[in-house]
Amino acid sequence: MSRTIEVCLTPALLHLYNIENSIVVVIDILRATSSITYGIDNGAEAIIPVAHVEDCLAYADKGFLLAAERNGEVVAGYDFGNSPFSYTKEKVGGKTVVLTTTNGTKAMHMAQERAYKVVVGSFLNLTSLCNYLTAQDKNVLLLCSGWKDNFNLEDTLFAGAVVNVLRNDFTHSDDACVVAEDMYLMAKDDLRTYLHKSSHSHRLAALNIEEDVRFCLKLDLCKAIPVLEGEKLVPLFKS
Amino acid sequence: MSRTIEVCLTPALLHLYNIENSIVVVIDILRATSSITYGIDNGAEAIIPVAHVEDCLAYADKGFLLAAERNGEVVAGYDFGNSPFSYTKEKVGGKTVVLTTTNGTKAMHMAQERAYKVVVGSFLNLTSLCNYLTAQDKNVLLLCSGWKDNFNLEDTLFAGAVVNVLRNDFTHSDDACVVAEDMYLMAKDDLRTYLHKSSHSHRLAALNIEEDVRFCLKLDLCKAIPVLEGEKLVPLFKS
Repeated sequence: MSRTIEVCLTPALLHLYNIENSIVVVIDILRATSSITYGIDNGAEAIIPVAHVEDCLAYADKGFLLAAERNGEVVAGYDFGNSPFSYTKEKVGGKTVVLTTTNGTKAMHMAQERAYKVVVGSFLNLTSLCNYLTAQDKNVLLLCSGWKDNFNLEDTLFAGAVVNVLRNDFTHSDDACVVAEDMYLMAKDDLRTYLHKSSHSHRLAALNIEEDVRFCLKLDLCKAIPVLEGEKLVPLFKS
Repeated sequence: MSRTIEVCLTPALLHLYNIENSIVVVIDILRATSSITYGIDNGAEAIIPVAHVEDCLAYADKGFLLAAERNGEVVAGYDFGNSPFSYTKEKVGGKTVVLTTTNGTKAMHMAQERAYKVVVGSFLNLTSLCNYLTAQDKNVLLLCSGWKDNFNLEDTLFAGAVVNVLRNDFTHSDDACVVAEDMYLMAKDDLRTYLHKSSHSHRLAALNIEEDVRFCLKLDLCKAIPVLEGEKLVPLFKS
């Protein structure tokens, strides 16, 4: 068993990892990769992640849905924000969505420069994702998007969940794997309560999106695995 | 209470922290900051941390003790290596030691560029260090030296021990504080066993320095707090 699994705690540490032969799983639990998973699972044709609200404008006349929020409010003139509840079949089925997310976009673009493949993970597709990773003959890097380049709790917890599922099928030796898995095992019976300790949770509480947070912690609502192809996230397996 | 305590998980993330008004505690448990604490406590006049064995040579004709090892062996021509057992009263009392340590030196020098003050922490001086930090009117940043710029377990565990002691006297809101403290609380009853999970522990096991590791995990053997003044670590309080 020579495949390795590693956890990169923030994009600022990605340069330390050799990912040329790795599938990189980008993680931005609150809320980008959760909304992306849900949207792709609900039949969105593609989701294009961009870093800034202004970047959406380049797509304004292409008939795409534009998603952007500032301070928890949908930006005027845009179709919706980052809540996973906006990514339903009714709203995104057959559509392409341009989604604004600073931390997640940065992580995806950095990974894309070197990785064998870049996919998206969230609690919503945990089992499906792990089944896929187990079936490949590749190393895995779990890339936490973090918050402004620094460590965050919710992305690390999800990385720990994946490590816990895959621990027997991969070699793992880095300390970030150890800490992520142990944090997950400590928190898994009540992720929501544990996340009350996190800084991002406080920021989100101020935005009044408790329902979003609870949704993003649900396990295995989705089977889809979004994969980055060029600038677009599309379903890894076409249904 | 407006003082903050934060944990920086690796020197590669230090640029994310505002430390101009902070006391930075540099942590390199296995074994640099443990040996430095023990050496200063045992009456070393000063300890000069350098990053590379070659850097020691600049001090060769000054009558200093030179400490360097490669692959667990004292480098030929040097006085001793990095084992804390080399830093006894008999060996270092009244002497200046030049100590080679890549990760710790980098962390100290980076912090020194901006911090209010740079001190050294280890399990050996935990209580003394915490008493000192509590008595100052400064923010505290716990800087884990890590391993080659990446996260490591043993430095994070010690950061968590400090957070746990200081939690009521400081404001802490960053997620790294949460994870460090929770890891420490999980591991504290048997730090040695927990560290068997760490990557550095495996590296050290190969070097056959189990006694060093056990020594570096002892609590409160020392009262000294080394502080960085120019290029030298000296006792914060002269006895």
